[in-house]
Amino acid sequence: MRSHYCGQLNETLVDQTVTLCGWVHRRRDHGGVIFLDLRDRDGIAQVVVDPDTAEAFANADRARSEFVLRIEGRVRLRPEGTQNPNMPTGMIEVLAKQVEVLNAAATPPFQLDEHGKVGEEVRLKHRYIDLRRPEMIEKLRLRSRISHSVRAFLEGEGFLDIETPVLTRATPEGARDYLVPSRTHAGSFFALPQSPQLFKQLLMVAGFDRYYQIAKCFRDEDLRADRQPEFTQIDIEASFVEEADIMGITESMIRSLFKDVLDVELGDFPRMTWHDAMQRFGSDKPDLRIPLELVDVDDLMKDVDFKVFSGPANADDGRVAALKVSGGASLSRKEIDEYTKFVGIYGARGLAWIKVNERARGIEGLQSPIVKFMEDVIETLLDRVDAKDGDIVFFGADKARIVNEALGALRVKLGEDLNLYTCEWSPLWVVDFPMFEADDNGRLSPLHHPFTSPSCSPDELKSNPAEALSRAYDMVLNGTELGGGSIRIHDQAMQKVVFEILGIAEDEAREKFGFLLDALQYGAPPHGGLAFGLDRLVMLMTGARTIREVIAFPKTQSAACLMTDAPGEVSADQLKDLNIRLRQKAKVEDSE
Amino acid sequence: MRSHYCGQLNETLVDQTVTLCGWVHRRRDHGGVIFLDLRDRDGIAQVVVDPDTAEAFANADRARSEFVLRIEGRVRLRPEGTQNPNMPTGMIEVLAKQVEVLNAAATPPFQLDEHGKVGEEVRLKHRYIDLRRPEMIEKLRLRSRISHSVRAFLEGEGFLDIETPVLTRATPEGARDYLVPSRTHAGSFFALPQSPQLFKQLLMVAGFDRYYQIAKCFRDEDLRADRQPEFTQIDIEASFVEEADIMGITESMIRSLFKDVLDVELGDFPRMTWHDAMQRFGSDKPDLRIPLELVDVDDLMKDVDFKVFSGPANADDGRVAALKVSGGASLSRKEIDEYTKFVGIYGARGLAWIKVNERARGIEGLQSPIVKFMEDVIETLLDRVDAKDGDIVFFGADKARIVNEALGALRVKLGEDLNLYTCEWSPLWVVDFPMFEADDNGRLSPLHHPFTSPSCSPDELKSNPAEALSRAYDMVLNGTELGGGSIRIHDQAMQKVVFEILGIAEDEAREKFGFLLDALQYGAPPHGGLAFGLDRLVMLMTGARTIREVIAFPKTQSAACLMTDAPGEVSADQLKDLNIRLRQKAKVEDSE
Repeated sequence: MRSHYCGQLNETLVDQTVTLCGWVHRRRDHGGVIFLDLRDRDGIAQVVVDPDTAEAFANADRARSEFVLRIEGRVRLRPEGTQNPNMPTGMIEVLAKQVEVLNAAATPPFQLDEHGKVGEEVRLKHRYIDLRRPEMIEKLRLRSRISHSVRAFLEGEGFLDIETPVLTRATPEGARDYLVPSRTHAGSFFALPQSPQLFKQLLMVAGFDRYYQIAKCFRDEDLRADRQPEFTQIDIEASFVEEADIMGITESMIRSLFKDVLDVELGDFPRMTWHDAMQRFGSDKPDLRIPLELVDVDDLMKDVDFKVFSGPANADDGRVAALKVSGGASLSRKEIDEYTKFVGIYGARGLAWIKVNERARGIEGLQSPIVKFMEDVIETLLDRVDAKDGDIVFFGADKARIVNEALGALRVKLGEDLNLYTCEWSPLWVVDFPMFEADDNGRLSPLHHPFTSPSCSPDELKSNPAEALSRAYDMVLNGTELGGGSIRIHDQAMQKVVFEILGIAEDEAREKFGFLLDALQYGAPPHGGLAFGLDRLVMLMTGARTIREVIAFPKTQSAACLMTDAPGEVSADQLKDLNIRLRQKAKVEDSE
Repeated sequence: MRSHYCGQLNETLVDQTVTLCGWVHRRRDHGGVIFLDLRDRDGIAQVVVDPDTAEAFANADRARSEFVLRIEGRVRLRPEGTQNPNMPTGMIEVLAKQVEVLNAAATPPFQLDEHGKVGEEVRLKHRYIDLRRPEMIEKLRLRSRISHSVRAFLEGEGFLDIETPVLTRATPEGARDYLVPSRTHAGSFFALPQSPQLFKQLLMVAGFDRYYQIAKCFRDEDLRADRQPEFTQIDIEASFVEEADIMGITESMIRSLFKDVLDVELGDFPRMTWHDAMQRFGSDKPDLRIPLELVDVDDLMKDVDFKVFSGPANADDGRVAALKVSGGASLSRKEIDEYTKFVGIYGARGLAWIKVNERARGIEGLQSPIVKFMEDVIETLLDRVDAKDGDIVFFGADKARIVNEALGALRVKLGEDLNLYTCEWSPLWVVDFPMFEADDNGRLSPLHHPFTSPSCSPDELKSNPAEALSRAYDMVLNGTELGGGSIRIHDQAMQKVVFEILGIAEDEAREKFGFLLDALQYGAPPHGGLAFGLDRLVMLMTGARTIREVIAFPKTQSAACLMTDAPGEVSADQLKDLNIRLRQKAKVEDSE
């Protein structure tokens, strides 16, 4: 029906006849002539309809915003002075010979140019209109290119694309499962997979050697801003590999992806231990674009006459850390109060600070509510953080966990607020994670999942589980965890030790993962892998602010689709078929 | 860990040291030496372990079937007389220097070579072992190549890969939905999509122009041999297109796929109307590899003194058709009895036949229970079907629907039994489908789905819906429907007429498809598409006999996974969270 996409038109086509199909983006009447901006997925072209072409003019005249038109016309240069160099097609226009109305359009609930004027609810309800915005089309087009680039890379490396079931059994991630009642097995339920973890391990046991899948995963969690009940994972697993193999190949994949899609060279990714990341950045996914670091000052604070600092400095699980911000002395009292509130979100009970106005003047040159308690150590402290005139030093003092979370988050916020970024992209690997984390009662749970291999022997693991490191690795980009993975346990004896330490009884393990334990005994190869969150990767690469911008038909934070009105009520017969009944009727007021 | 896959070894590597990783496929001790067939996904290599390499020998000595080994050794030519030209690696062997046991294996529940000796249940329960069979790996490898080839083609044609939701609302296919109770919206349910039909149409309304997705779809139906509760669709939709555009591009896609993956040239696909397909082959998906055709003989049978024939020949909805099989006179009475039973499955009350022994002798030269009733017309009849000595002619006489189904199926069965195939691959397009089909009460239902565009105007459709043709098209290969699609309705008024004819009230249409009707009024472009069943395509291309051979982790006919034991019971707390309770407890005896 068309000869060109609107966005393809340019000066080389002058004097040629073209046929375009698209939507009326804007319409202007000027000097008896109708100007139509015709939009398709590739761009916008200006169409001029002259009253001389009577039928075309009549059709153009009844065209309104979002009408669907087919236009045949001749490309010509725009007259001097009306050219628009900011627009790819801005040098030319199409003089229409024929205008055909393919479909009319009712007045849309919002104009694309004015989408900011309506709430997100209106846009989600009419998602098919909101998606017409060129920036939305562009984000999903990029998403498609990203998937394709990843696939091309992995195919080239001999990975096989293998589909794993969506109707399956509860998986081990530990989040809440979405359940699907079985009709043929009354009283039983499928679970939607939280990841293909177990299946990909079984594929390794089966000998597929290199597997990948871009797979839908499901978690029925209370949603945060960047979560969706269904999300997409680039899932990778390989056999006869060690950490370096998986990290090497997936790093190449991401490098090749950035080069391919964004023309960005990421270079080699640095590696950092989990311990270093926590000490220096208070986070296991540090944003290394921000040149701020946490500095330990426990040793200096052990004897100061300030309990808030000396307490944590002397406690086993405590930490006192400093965070220097160059030029930060210009922060106002009000701004500092805001940051104090901000770290409160992470459990910090305050935010001590020292402004360095003039170091040469000693204590006199500092401004701070706390400096009076630490006169003896102040010079050592300022030297250690390399504080210069005009800087500010913030402090965290509490349980290490709280200090890390609070200063880690403050560091990122300062980076944003003060625009401290030193580069656009900063990837890294975080390695040497602890095998387990302890809750307040000392109960251990896996930091990743219970199939992650430790980097020690079963005996060493048993004797000191809390100190054991795992063979896990996370890829981090700009403070976001792009993906995580590990070498898995392929040895039944090791798997049993891990279940023991986690307090998972043998029959519970059998009930939940019996088929995996069986598989491990029938010749499981050493194997490992990694899974990337595709949605987050696309968010980063497209600069999207919410995950909803990179998913064609997203759900709201209450896990509903405003467009299709899902979830919805179902008939009593359907429920009967599934052998279930409701405890209470749907609350109609909820869905309104 | 390895330098080569086992299957990669050949004479060019002689005298090189290689490292292999894999499974012990077979082990033989011969003349004090251990021979191991080591298997990985690429093939099998013979490894020789000599007692001279003591440590290697000791490890090889404890290796049993399916142990996982890493072997380092030197490639050498096999001694004269022990070469195996039937095996890709049959000219060489590896003399082991080191044998490392990476993992032991318990005695597997069945030997790969002897998988036929155990039932499918055992193999499904230990799927990770059954998948080790080279032919299983090969089928899934081919499946991966097929997906990749399709994606590469569609990307090249500018189709965007866009994901549509899995947690959604009931879709219009009319099969039973899988439901997912919502926790956050008590009493409401998501449905798993039977296809992305509505979403892909909305993507066209949104202006994405060309969309594709390889998408999981779900139907909670009682399973036939070639169905699975979750299956995979290659889903395609484009805007500003007509039938020829979609058919052209998808035909190119399949041609390119066969060339790419099987090195087969399919050539141009013939087109056949639905009416011709039913008349000539009794099927809307005729297998054109079989050179048998149904021939109408109603006109000859109107006045014969044989009610079984004259009745249907004179009835409006009746049909009498002949099916000639060249050389079929040699069929035994027993074989004919079997075929008579066979057509009974399709409702035929008998199977009349005439054997042509010697046409020159007239009636005397024929052998048949019915020929006596049709002496007047017999010559015309035999001429019409071009019967020669040695042929058999079968007859169907009943309601047209029954004749078509019975003789259509008989035709395919004869093709198989007598191996009548004239070629390996026979694709075609079936077009000009009726818009609706009538049930016995004359109630119309859509032959495809209610968004299929008719090929006439709304007024013409209204005045004679039963005769209206649709703009649908099916791609058929070797008697299997590979895919089907249509130009959709993009006009709200037309959509309303179709709903009217189907007896779908306006509020019901709104309740079910309101968002699509809304979308149609805000500027919907002309659009259409097609969906291929990937599983069936892979079955055909790999020569698989069941769909379970081309799915890594399939379900049984009762929609259960024997490996993971899904579906399973869930806790009372989980059900409470979801606001549901069971009508009756799970029947434990069922799951045993």
